[in-house]
Amino acid sequence: MPHADPAPYRALVHAPETRHLDVIDQRTLPHEIVHLRLADAEAAARAIREMAIRGAPLIGAVGAYGLALALDRDASDAALVSAHAMLDATRPTAVNLRWALDRVRDRVAPLAPPARADRAWAEADAIVAEDMAINHAIGEHGLAVLRDIARQRSGPVRVMTHCNAGALATCGWGTATAPIFLAHAAGLPLHVWVSETRPRLQGASLTAWELGERGVPHTLVVDGAAGLLMARGEVDVVFVGADRVARNGDVCNKIGTYDKALAARDNGVPFYAAVPSPTIDWRMNDGGAIPIEARDADEVLVIAGRADDGRRVRVAIAPPATPAVNYAFDVTPARLVTGILTERGIARASGDALAAMFPDRAR
Amino acid sequence: MPHADPAPYRALVHAPETRHLDVIDQRTLPHEIVHLRLADAEAAARAIREMAIRGAPLIGAVGAYGLALALDRDASDAALVSAHAMLDATRPTAVNLRWALDRVRDRVAPLAPPARADRAWAEADAIVAEDMAINHAIGEHGLAVLRDIARQRSGPVRVMTHCNAGALATCGWGTATAPIFLAHAAGLPLHVWVSETRPRLQGASLTAWELGERGVPHTLVVDGAAGLLMARGEVDVVFVGADRVARNGDVCNKIGTYDKALAARDNGVPFYAAVPSPTIDWRMNDGGAIPIEARDADEVLVIAGRADDGRRVRVAIAPPATPAVNYAFDVTPARLVTGILTERGIARASGDALAAMFPDRAR
Repeated sequence: MPHADPAPYRALVHAPETRHLDVIDQRTLPHEIVHLRLADAEAAARAIREMAIRGAPLIGAVGAYGLALALDRDASDAALVSAHAMLDATRPTAVNLRWALDRVRDRVAPLAPPARADRAWAEADAIVAEDMAINHAIGEHGLAVLRDIARQRSGPVRVMTHCNAGALATCGWGTATAPIFLAHAAGLPLHVWVSETRPRLQGASLTAWELGERGVPHTLVVDGAAGLLMARGEVDVVFVGADRVARNGDVCNKIGTYDKALAARDNGVPFYAAVPSPTIDWRMNDGGAIPIEARDADEVLVIAGRADDGRRVRVAIAPPATPAVNYAFDVTPARLVTGILTERGIARASGDALAAMFPDRAR
Repeated sequence: MPHADPAPYRALVHAPETRHLDVIDQRTLPHEIVHLRLADAEAAARAIREMAIRGAPLIGAVGAYGLALALDRDASDAALVSAHAMLDATRPTAVNLRWALDRVRDRVAPLAPPARADRAWAEADAIVAEDMAINHAIGEHGLAVLRDIARQRSGPVRVMTHCNAGALATCGWGTATAPIFLAHAAGLPLHVWVSETRPRLQGASLTAWELGERGVPHTLVVDGAAGLLMARGEVDVVFVGADRVARNGDVCNKIGTYDKALAARDNGVPFYAAVPSPTIDWRMNDGGAIPIEARDADEVLVIAGRADDGRRVRVAIAPPATPAVNYAFDVTPARLVTGILTERGIARASGDALAAMFPDRAR
């Protein structure tokens, strides 16, 4: 593949000669690298629902393969409808899942049942190849932003990111990390502030791991440190991913993103969302209507990590029976977003600018 | 004492007939209640430095007793100077510590050495009594704010707080929690959003515990949820404490406070800092010069909690050797602060308003 990510790890592997999918179980990273073999649609749905895999683009790809796995077993119209519904119900916020499921279904539904499964596998493979190409293109547009900053100051370009919009959230390169990885490969001096991203700590456990694997200098901070670091002038630019973007440029992303955008605005730090076009929901006029997934309160109340003896242990941080709520995402209003970094270039975060960049989708 | 906090726990106890101090070791809360007996100045300094006790007003009181403990052993001029310096060096950001140490020193220095220790114990006791009275008065002024909100809407008044500015951070009542505890005692329906406050999780481990002990309805959230909750209209007012306030009303408080103030401003939510007057540093013109303590990176990288078997366990959350920085405080600019809640009333966050409320201190 022309834009394949040369990283030593891959969130998802489908070898074309097989009829299954291998993924990294992201719940045990960075302490242990466990691979999961997804051999049927139920396993794919479970991997998405239980967040063994996560990240909007990766969820979309695994959903597409999930449909292929279902059709391997039963390619009837009824089975197609029911597998689509089961997979679609796993996560409510990321729009790529619905987009990928609809895409595979629309390709295979007109075919005779015996032809459907092979077509579904091929379509899922195409989604993976496109995702890598999209992310690589996002990376090149973002690299231009980083080069501009590098021309204006000496020392490394200091990027802040949130959650994991890395290669582990996609089929390769990542979205928000693609400019970082390309810049690092090009020899541009960089330093990445990694926001730990409570409750699931995807920053500490996944982004820090990816940056370490690739040798990119980085420093971990708590989520609440964003404002201080920006006020001290220690952040040049913020790159985040997105789970869904509305037509008007409102960005739905991991909880805490909006707070970072506010800190960026208050300190004149440019704030970009890296958004593959399948993440834009053209049917949603603004972010107010995006469903915000509320996950299990235990994700707030209990933290998993590596004990001194190397075992993975879960520890409670609050008094027993403490009530908690766990909204997984928030919405950053378009007015706080400097630009939407897409595979076609950087659009202003507005309905007009996005529609002008994607006239073929915006109708 | 007229304003004694009726809570079933006390962060600090000095029985007048004894020459030692008992404190709750806040590092094992909420999983275990361990009391520490501080029998000499070194133990007091260690308790402050290692954060067995924390919270600006409590640090001040323990510092004052630390000086009394030192004078019990050696009341010479040299010992007074050296104990003052040792205790003052334990924490750089909270101004109450220096204020309390200077106050005790200035009272005892003119006395003959044999009279000094008793005078120091009495002065430390006076600081404790005054702290409770100050916090009670702050609580009454804050209660008026909560009653105003209650008149404007049905349902409980929804308060957000950050870190622990509770009774555990003071000699009783707390600062930001005093209005909450008085409102709850008065039967005003309340709901408190407790921000967990990484890295040390004082919200999850201390504030949630205090609210639970007193029966105040509350819900724990991650720090990054503040913006979303405010955007959804689920927060009526924010009350935070302070470690130091500059003459102009800039508020230095736990890391993440500034981010919350930005979210409050963006959503029209009033944001108050509860500030006993000893927390105002009249020698500091604005917050830019307040020293920001950088604590051990391990506080970010390792989280302590209660394992399933009841043991207290520390777990690593990031890949080995991940670099981290741990600034403990940030500065919220006065422009984002609706009001400074003091024992004398609510002042606008401005140099003029604070000086008008404290003309005796501001000179």
